[in-house]
Amino acid sequence: MQAEIITIGDEILIGQIIDSNSAFISKELNKIGVSVYQITSVQDDRDHILEALKVAEDRSSVVIITGGLGPTKDDITKHTLCHFFNDDLIQDDGVLEYIEELFKKYISTPISDLNRKQALVPSKATVLHNAHGTAPGLWMKKGDTAFISLPGVPFEMKNLMKNEVLPKIIKEYKRPHIFHKTIMTYGLGESAIANKIEEWENSLPPFIKLAYLPNLGRVRLRLSAKGNNNGEIIAAIEAEVKKLYPLIGDIIYGEEEEESIEYQIAKLLTEKKMTLATAESFTGGKIAQQITTIPGASSYFKGSVVSYATEAKIKVLSVPEDLVKKHSVVSEEVAIAMAKNVKKMLGTDFSIATTGNAGPTKGDSDAEVGTTYIAVSTPEHTFAQKFTMGNHRERIVQKSVNKAFELLLKEILKF
Amino acid sequence: MQAEIITIGDEILIGQIIDSNSAFISKELNKIGVSVYQITSVQDDRDHILEALKVAEDRSSVVIITGGLGPTKDDITKHTLCHFFNDDLIQDDGVLEYIEELFKKYISTPISDLNRKQALVPSKATVLHNAHGTAPGLWMKKGDTAFISLPGVPFEMKNLMKNEVLPKIIKEYKRPHIFHKTIMTYGLGESAIANKIEEWENSLPPFIKLAYLPNLGRVRLRLSAKGNNNGEIIAAIEAEVKKLYPLIGDIIYGEEEEESIEYQIAKLLTEKKMTLATAESFTGGKIAQQITTIPGASSYFKGSVVSYATEAKIKVLSVPEDLVKKHSVVSEEVAIAMAKNVKKMLGTDFSIATTGNAGPTKGDSDAEVGTTYIAVSTPEHTFAQKFTMGNHRERIVQKSVNKAFELLLKEILKF
Repeated sequence: MQAEIITIGDEILIGQIIDSNSAFISKELNKIGVSVYQITSVQDDRDHILEALKVAEDRSSVVIITGGLGPTKDDITKHTLCHFFNDDLIQDDGVLEYIEELFKKYISTPISDLNRKQALVPSKATVLHNAHGTAPGLWMKKGDTAFISLPGVPFEMKNLMKNEVLPKIIKEYKRPHIFHKTIMTYGLGESAIANKIEEWENSLPPFIKLAYLPNLGRVRLRLSAKGNNNGEIIAAIEAEVKKLYPLIGDIIYGEEEEESIEYQIAKLLTEKKMTLATAESFTGGKIAQQITTIPGASSYFKGSVVSYATEAKIKVLSVPEDLVKKHSVVSEEVAIAMAKNVKKMLGTDFSIATTGNAGPTKGDSDAEVGTTYIAVSTPEHTFAQKFTMGNHRERIVQKSVNKAFELLLKEILKF
Repeated sequence: MQAEIITIGDEILIGQIIDSNSAFISKELNKIGVSVYQITSVQDDRDHILEALKVAEDRSSVVIITGGLGPTKDDITKHTLCHFFNDDLIQDDGVLEYIEELFKKYISTPISDLNRKQALVPSKATVLHNAHGTAPGLWMKKGDTAFISLPGVPFEMKNLMKNEVLPKIIKEYKRPHIFHKTIMTYGLGESAIANKIEEWENSLPPFIKLAYLPNLGRVRLRLSAKGNNNGEIIAAIEAEVKKLYPLIGDIIYGEEEEESIEYQIAKLLTEKKMTLATAESFTGGKIAQQITTIPGASSYFKGSVVSYATEAKIKVLSVPEDLVKKHSVVSEEVAIAMAKNVKKMLGTDFSIATTGNAGPTKGDSDAEVGTTYIAVSTPEHTFAQKFTMGNHRERIVQKSVNKAFELLLKEILKF
């Protein structure tokens, strides 16, 4: 069963926002056996939207449309749907009541005619309740194809998808099974992996597809299978994954998309009841921030000292001033002192420390842009490694954060 | 002049990655007067790619294709282009030489046949030099339409766009002028703003378009104009912006997309030679991380204490244990103590502190999920405000970070 996504809004086509909605919708549809054939981003223009709807109708059973449902003038999705369905807007009393209630409860400004207009819906539409905003979702049918219009605000869209759209698709359409498995690897490039698994790849059954997804020092291998028997396709993929381990087991760190290295670290530290602290210089708090994105982080993560300035390393982390003078602030010695001291300060089992120069200019030291030291301290020892991470600020930081998690995970696995 | 973008890769259509390339490409094309008509994401499937190429050819002068240029089996863009152009792959000696050089310099694994295959290009293509990877860009012409194929790795794609593609488009095509101006506002909702500026909006000249872009407590108003005389369209937009100030000047904090509140803070602190530190609990380092994303942060940002656990607030930030016991760790009093102490520790002029509960469960305090306190300390006083930020972990954190920057900016403006 095939779907497609149409995202509406000039802001996408002038590059002002990144369309993250489509990835979410695609992932959710895939989970229930619906493949997304195409994602099309079009302008806030009636004729263009109509053209995209027509093309989609001819090939897909479900068309999900996001955006253009706001209360302001540039939002034209509802009018365009009326044109496409030869329909008119009528007031939905339930929606109006709900909007009035929302305004009373949460919003300090008085309700306006513009807000009330959000209760106007095409007369042929089934209204989908938007529990988090004033623009309702709409479900309209043309032949066998359902056209589903959702607001572009990600939070509202996500809730509508989960609570209204997916249950309704599951109820109304018969779907095949799709199963994806993603093998997470680090430390080896795409083509080096391809060489190692060439024979295995060539012998994959035709209903299993393999894709390589490289990103900053990590490569994900995605296996996908589609079929009518869920048990069979899962078993087939699991069997293939098993054969992978003798070939590249040493570089595999997880088997699920969600199993980022951070998740692995979180899982292991929670299991082992061990704790972590970080001392970050040029990574500016990004390691702490990625750790605390994971719910439950408070059980193993104590905190971080983001010692961006050299004086913060000396004052807060008690790195001896002499050490900084002797070896420079970007050095193995300072990284090790930072890791040791933050571990002691916060009384944790493990710590990570970073010091380096992310550019664009040289900072408090003479280190070249891209030179970084990452230290890890464990209950048994402390070490630092030097890396050269290129000359692009954002990449230097992200690559170093990835590398820090990689080094830490390898140590945690020893306990 | 019209362009479109085709992104190739199953990973987009199963929602495994978010397509951020298209936003970058669109923004860059817009800057040189090329409008993007449509963005289409298609599967790693020859017929589907061919269909998308055909549709694009009939309506656009420039078609930018990303993805599917890797060395592995699932990458089929080059073969598909050969089919579309009735062409064959030949070896490009320059590219081969460059790949061999790259491997010698940077890559520890030996060069393989797969890597060497990246030097195969369609015979009719002009090769665009990829300074950061092994897959070259390709420029192919059919009638007046240029088909430009770029690797999907964002870093490689961006460099190819800037150094090869944009200069070539500028040289080969005549283009009109496009000018966008984005007015950044905070503290008022989309429809409340629309009410205040209704008359102004209705009197905009027809060649100026207005869009509302709301996001977590901030609304951006984007004005766009297209014309043949660059000076005229810029002047027209500037004249309209001037008229906006008497209507909503109090909620405008910037006039450029790049002028985020963080940038404003960075600019002001640098100008005033004043400094900042942060003490973060539930925001987990995100405030520090957003500050340090801005190049030059080291001149005003000293550091942050991410005191995630209560004991870190006591041990590192010297928040009195009694204060925590008496008022709870999520309280105005603790937020104020954190702000005061971090400011003193790092000797800065300003500080921000956060304490709260981002969920999903209650943490070290009894505070409801979503309850947060944000404190700001200035050279003159320290205060904290309480907020209720809903019940969605990620949103609680991001809304609080935004709010913290908003509160800080208002204080900095007083000095």
